Amino acid sequence: MKVAFVMGSDSDLPVVEKGIKTVQDFGVEVVVRVISAHRTPVAAEEFAKTAEENGIGVIVAAAGKAAHLGGVLAAYTTIPVIGLPIKSSTLDGLDSLLSIVQMPPGIPVATVAIDGAENAGILAVQMLALSNPELKEKLKAHKKAMEEKVAAKDAAVMARFQG
Amino acid sequence: MKVAFVMGSDSDLPVVEKGIKTVQDFGVEVVVRVISAHRTPVAAEEFAKTAEENGIGVIVAAAGKAAHLGGVLAAYTTIPVIGLPIKSSTLDGLDSLLSIVQMPPGIPVATVAIDGAENAGILAVQMLALSNPELKEKLKAHKKAMEEKVAAKDAAVMARFQG
Amino acid sequence: MKVAFVMGSDSDLPVVEKGIKTVQDFGVEVVVRVISAHRTPVAAEEFAKTAEENGIGVIVAAAGKAAHLGGVLAAYTTIPVIGLPIKSSTLDGLDSLLSIVQMPPGIPVATVAIDGAENAGILAVQMLALSNPELKEKLKAHKKAMEEKVAAKDAAVMARFQG
Amino acid sequence: MKVAFVMGSDSDLPVVEKGIKTVQDFGVEVVVRVISAHRTPVAAEEFAKTAEENGIGVIVAAAGKAAHLGGVLAAYTTIPVIGLPIKSSTLDGLDSLLSIVQMPPGIPVATVAIDGAENAGILAVQMLALSNPELKEKLKAHKKAMEEKVAAKDAAVMARFQG
Amino acid sequence: MKVAFVMGSDSDLPVVEKGIKTVQDFGVEVVVRVISAHRTPVAAEEFAKTAEENGIGVIVAAAGKAAHLGGVLAAYTTIPVIGLPIKSSTLDGLDSLLSIVQMPPGIPVATVAIDGAENAGILAVQMLALSNPELKEKLKAHKKAMEEKVAAKDAAVMARFQG
Amino acid sequence: MKVAFVMGSDSDLPVVEKGIKTVQDFGVEVVVRVISAHRTPVAAEEFAKTAEENGIGVIVAAAGKAAHLGGVLAAYTTIPVIGLPIKSSTLDGLDSLLSIVQMPPGIPVATVAIDGAENAGILAVQMLALSNPELKEKLKAHKKAMEEKVAAKDAAVMARFQG
Amino acid sequence: MKVAFVMGSDSDLPVVEKGIKTVQDFGVEVVVRVISAHRTPVAAEEFAKTAEENGIGVIVAAAGKAAHLGGVLAAYTTIPVIGLPIKSSTLDGLDSLLSIVQMPPGIPVATVAIDGAENAGILAVQMLALSNPELKEKLKAHKKAMEEKVAAKDAAVMARFQG
Amino acid sequence: MKVAFVMGSDSDLPVVEKGIKTVQDFGVEVVVRVISAHRTPVAAEEFAKTAEENGIGVIVAAAGKAAHLGGVLAAYTTIPVIGLPIKSSTLDGLDSLLSIVQMPPGIPVATVAIDGAENAGILAVQMLALSNPELKEKLKAHKKAMEEKVAAKDAAVMARFQG
Repeated sequence: MKVAFVMGSDSDLPVVEKGIKTVQDFGVEVVVRVISAHRTPVAAEEFAKTAEENGIGVIVAAAGKAAHLGGVLAAYTTIPVIGLPIKSSTLDGLDSLLSIVQMPPGIPVATVAIDGAENAGILAVQMLALSNPELKEKLKAHKKAMEEKVAAKDAAVMARFQG
Repeated sequence: MKVAFVMGSDSDLPVVEKGIKTVQDFGVEVVVRVISAHRTPVAAEEFAKTAEENGIGVIVAAAGKAAHLGGVLAAYTTIPVIGLPIKSSTLDGLDSLLSIVQMPPGIPVATVAIDGAENAGILAVQMLALSNPELKEKLKAHKKAMEEKVAAKDAAVMARFQG
Repeated sequence: MKVAFVMGSDSDLPVVEKGIKTVQDFGVEVVVRVISAHRTPVAAEEFAKTAEENGIGVIVAAAGKAAHLGGVLAAYTTIPVIGLPIKSSTLDGLDSLLSIVQMPPGIPVATVAIDGAENAGILAVQMLALSNPELKEKLKAHKKAMEEKVAAKDAAVMARFQG
Repeated sequence: MKVAFVMGSDSDLPVVEKGIKTVQDFGVEVVVRVISAHRTPVAAEEFAKTAEENGIGVIVAAAGKAAHLGGVLAAYTTIPVIGLPIKSSTLDGLDSLLSIVQMPPGIPVATVAIDGAENAGILAVQMLALSNPELKEKLKAHKKAMEEKVAAKDAAVMARFQG
Repeated sequence: MKVAFVMGSDSDLPVVEKGIKTVQDFGVEVVVRVISAHRTPVAAEEFAKTAEENGIGVIVAAAGKAAHLGGVLAAYTTIPVIGLPIKSSTLDGLDSLLSIVQMPPGIPVATVAIDGAENAGILAVQMLALSNPELKEKLKAHKKAMEEKVAAKDAAVMARFQG
Repeated sequence: MKVAFVMGSDSDLPVVEKGIKTVQDFGVEVVVRVISAHRTPVAAEEFAKTAEENGIGVIVAAAGKAAHLGGVLAAYTTIPVIGLPIKSSTLDGLDSLLSIVQMPPGIPVATVAIDGAENAGILAVQMLALSNPELKEKLKAHKKAMEEKVAAKDAAVMARFQG
Repeated sequence: MKVAFVMGSDSDLPVVEKGIKTVQDFGVEVVVRVISAHRTPVAAEEFAKTAEENGIGVIVAAAGKAAHLGGVLAAYTTIPVIGLPIKSSTLDGLDSLLSIVQMPPGIPVATVAIDGAENAGILAVQMLALSNPELKEKLKAHKKAMEEKVAAKDAAVMARFQG
Repeated sequence: MKVAFVMGSDSDLPVVEKGIKTVQDFGVEVVVRVISAHRTPVAAEEFAKTAEENGIGVIVAAAGKAAHLGGVLAAYTTIPVIGLPIKSSTLDGLDSLLSIVQMPPGIPVATVAIDGAENAGILAVQMLALSNPELKEKLKAHKKAMEEKVAAKDAAVMARFQG
């Protein structure tokens, strides 16, 4: 199963790219799209309706401001939709966050941190790993690697501030 | 031309009703619908696409929380969409307001105050009145009546606090 | 009918200009004014009172901070007033937004996104188009063009991330 | 000189009344008005323009939501205007507060706490007392009385929690 | 695979219960626990570390205020953790929401709306359905049922407001 | 050493009382005062200046709205001051929280959650326990007891939702 | 009577200076001080207690973050205190604003906009002008000048956008 | 007793360093660590559990975004934990602040201002000084020095603005 990254505007790509790379690093295939809930609603509907049959397991929807993309895609599919709020020029991302996370009952969007593209990618892989033992192992290795990286920084800082 | 009131849930009706009544008081015909951007997206699309040909001049879209309804309808039509943010059980309406008003470039939603159904109605009538002199006269009379109502309260309060 | 752009300070012009251009691109005539609700209240009153007879169909009122301009103009006219909140040096535009959108019952101001000048322009044209079939066609063409622009970006991004 | 209390709606009276009483307790004459910046703008202008000649030294302007009243009155006079933000049914008074306090350069509105009617009254008296030694003495006595009231409560609480 | 509902305090149960019921209605087995990230950290660690081997596919972590539970559980496992922010007596749930959703890079928590227990349940089922065709069918039926429920309300409201 | 609870108004007592009781339960003596930073500033100064010599080890300062009490006391002493923000009728405690926690460099106030009186008490005891092994043991026992209480609730809830 | 500008830190001077200059432009004498409510509380008390006898009519207190200065000065005097919230490196001035404006009953601080030094100066002059006809005339001239300045900009902008 | 500074990421070091230096300036030994509540939870647990026996009297926990570090450490120890919220790229530090300060009953975290590293250091020293008369004297000297520094700036500014 693939992970689709859909963004409302190609100006979101610099943020989203980190999530794409994260997923690719796990060896999972990605689909990357620019689809606007408001300017290309027909493409949004078509994409979401056919996502499952096109081999997409999880959708990451990135959008800023009144970020409706995740909700609009989730309306047309039952595969999990991850919402990635993008910070724009005003309100520091609070508008995107609330527009994505506060979904009314019935249609969830799994929201990650503002500009948290890397976590969107990891979360998508975690979902796929539920039925993919190989991915599960990679996730554990990834967790281990993060731990070691922090430990190395810990050692360096400890040394620096020691007598 | 008619004014359509579309709400995301029939639990919004007690708030929306004041707007419906306002429009009816101006002698303008209304259409009232319960359409969810997320649970009945096909109905939303169909409604918006056919609104113009069905004689609807302005759409008032009322929704709470991650309030995508206005944006979703506006995606499928070029008639003006008024967004009416509904206060729900958390965040005091701020989520609805930001989800509605912060629309990205290209697809505006004309937003009124949280729970401001009456103003949504007046605004819809103002738009229709642009090409309807009779409505224009009624709006002026309505403004005059509001003024007199406040003036009467002013007189009462002044009297009460006077020597 | 013309669209008037009124701003509280000429420092708002760089933001407002995008809205002016949007309206002009639709072939609609504009009037552009610098009027302060607080420093030139008499000009505000006069402008609003005579707007209709001067051929103005819609007013866009742009202001920052305690943004009273839209409300003050709306007090003196029954033509639709669009409020455009301008982000200033503190509070990221939240003050302007709330000062404009939270109008009390009776006098609506149709609010668009913070710094959302382009949408203010499109919304104004949508209102005028209610009685202007030519404008209506232009709006549909504009919508179509936006759709195609996003589709082109979609194609480019899809290509870039494909095997 | 008198202190004028102007409120945007007579529904604000229960909050404002505490301020009125505070001023009257200092022996200062009050004028109490219901004037809406939006529904009775002509009354607002007339009131503000003639305030000084009518013996009003300070204006307290109470309003909720998009609270423009203080700014609108201040536009037409040079006597000090105190803004009293009223909490309404949504946003907990934050909208009123920002609409009042964030006045752009040139036209100040002296803002007190949300629903802080008593402080609006005391502040008005402090201003008048600048040229009124008798009021000045009363303010000092009032301060002393507050101090004693707190001290009495302090004594009671100390006693209660002591051995 | 089972869905675990972990809450920081049993006072969260009235909200969480709706999510539990939602999952059970899909025929998925649940585990329900009261574990505090701060008062029973050892239980939290043990629960998260053994969740996978205990047949848990997805964890829903519900907590209020400084809601660390989701992050703490996610630190010890690679199965997806859904964060459910609970509204408490102050700040209207904003503290819980930000404490859950703003996870730093590396350890995602899939956040749903404040008090959005039903959506937490549906999201958990969507994840499990990725490898469970029967659940997938149930999700589609559930979506269909929601659609029909809204359509019925739509019909009722339309009828009520029609001539 | 004693723990002093100082509150800005005796209306804060119902919240503060839980903190007083917490400290007393640890066998630590309390002093309870009503002192207003603004209405009894001389008492505030005197209290803070003599706190140390009066055997007070830690001060808990509880206040609402523009909550200056903690900062004012901290200005006159070097013993730790714990700030306890009290929720009042508007803004849900955010004003108190920011007024207390955002102290400028040089004079810290150790802030706990809005209305978090119990934690203020525990924190005070933790500070005193730094040089009091008996208190340290009591804190460990208290932590253990909390753990057991949560574990008992966990067992009850687990049982209820099991087969 | 003089106007005193007191700031919590000399880093606030670049903002405050505009207010000082405004007052000096009206021919009113100023006193400028750096006094910290927390680091020099004795100086704060002494300054406030002697302000009146030192010929100070109004105090402008500028401070950022947990901005207690205005409240602390107001505690020791009955002359009007104007609070000027300074934006600092976090929270965009919201902390300063709430810390200043939300004063509890009894001790008002007349708050102006974040970084609104010019308005603090004008407000101070308005208060002094209550008993100073010359200042009153200057205020009217100042108002007139502002009006003309805006009118000139209006003319320039109108010309630029006219056929 | 030593003061430990623990940060969630070494990118926090530039802010935290000022606190480290403050503590060192008081002649108190520091331990500096990089430990992530989420990426190195085992290290967090081990650190907190052994802190007391390792001679640590107070822990300063610095973290940004969903800042769980302070709470996680406090869960495993009874020594005081000071929470230092770090401003990150979105939301201006509000997320860190609320995630740290809003701790549920039972486990306090003593929170200081966003990026308030210096105050975290002073607060830690104040706690240690409760049983260390030498530190107590140094704190008094430090307070005196701050006072003199402000007084010097006061003198400079006064001079500058005097006739």
